[in-house]
Amino acid sequence: MNEDAKAPRAPRKSVPYSPPSGPYPPQLHLYIGDGKGKTTAAVGLAARALGYGMKVDFIQFDKGGSEDDRYYERRLLRAAPGMNWIATGLERMRPGQPFRFGATDEDRREALRALALARQSLEGGGAGLVVLDEILSAVAYRLLREEEVWELAELFLARRPCELAMTGRRASPRLIEAAGLVTEMKCVKHCFESGIPARPGIDY
Amino acid sequence: MNEDAKAPRAPRKSVPYSPPSGPYPPQLHLYIGDGKGKTTAAVGLAARALGYGMKVDFIQFDKGGSEDDRYYERRLLRAAPGMNWIATGLERMRPGQPFRFGATDEDRREALRALALARQSLEGGGAGLVVLDEILSAVAYRLLREEEVWELAELFLARRPCELAMTGRRASPRLIEAAGLVTEMKCVKHCFESGIPARPGIDY
Repeated sequence: MNEDAKAPRAPRKSVPYSPPSGPYPPQLHLYIGDGKGKTTAAVGLAARALGYGMKVDFIQFDKGGSEDDRYYERRLLRAAPGMNWIATGLERMRPGQPFRFGATDEDRREALRALALARQSLEGGGAGLVVLDEILSAVAYRLLREEEVWELAELFLARRPCELAMTGRRASPRLIEAAGLVTEMKCVKHCFESGIPARPGIDY
Repeated sequence: MNEDAKAPRAPRKSVPYSPPSGPYPPQLHLYIGDGKGKTTAAVGLAARALGYGMKVDFIQFDKGGSEDDRYYERRLLRAAPGMNWIATGLERMRPGQPFRFGATDEDRREALRALALARQSLEGGGAGLVVLDEILSAVAYRLLREEEVWELAELFLARRPCELAMTGRRASPRLIEAAGLVTEMKCVKHCFESGIPARPGIDY
């Protein structure tokens, strides 16, 4: 396994991102569907953008666990220059306890906090890529209203200051219409169905 | 954007991976379909595994460009401890030239070289995650035979020494049957269709 064994290159030094002035403006990306891979693809997109030298704002909705880095992708990416990783939401998984379903007032407040951070990020954070992870699931679970996410999309569309990626279960028709790229991740088969639980380093 | 602004944590020091002895053995993952996000999800999976402290062998089939790091995700991940990134295949994209289609003898030789590296990796590379990126497309483009990939899967299934992820356009029924997790990435909408070309830091 020593093929191609050059010394690893450090990522390019992070520089302020200038939106392209050419005919190909930044796009809205949607990663939707019930399959595994939405957040994972957003993490990969972030890794690519960071490798290119972009600043990345990665805002997670309703994810929790911000304090303990139990989600292992955070460990690697947070250490990368240019990465601004923000996890919002209250904990839904606790060791030895069942998953907490439902939406409390506090869950809604956390979602609104994430929404405000997203707005701030689009209005002048200087990021080349903004990821709003699980924002669409936050709508599906009634933590946010579709209009609130659409207003954010309109803010993006007015200036297209950066690439914008949203993930979650499903998107409204007008969001899909506005997006430049939409991938639906369909669950053909999932380990969890066979009774295999989520495993650290692989599923989170 | 200064929420959650703790000092970034370095990834855990890489340690030799011990396959779990519990009832949940390592799985075969397939990321298939015509949508954007397959390689991107594999990159995200690698980031997560590296963050957990696993060693990762990331073998790319028919990808080319190994010398110039034109694929920007490589820059970040190659620098991570525990990452072994191997790009095989001859260049298909050259600045100012049309995409090179078709399969030459040399393309086939490169695919066989990647296959041998994959076998080596499964037989004792010590990786916790092995990614075989675009191996399934190599079958679709007739650089590899389905039986050759199936033999590799059998090698995996006999011992399950690590997690194994394969990406590409489509998978054979027996591969899908053997996999623990299969996500199909469906292209709902793609920028390229609107005439927007692949953009560095986002599409590669």
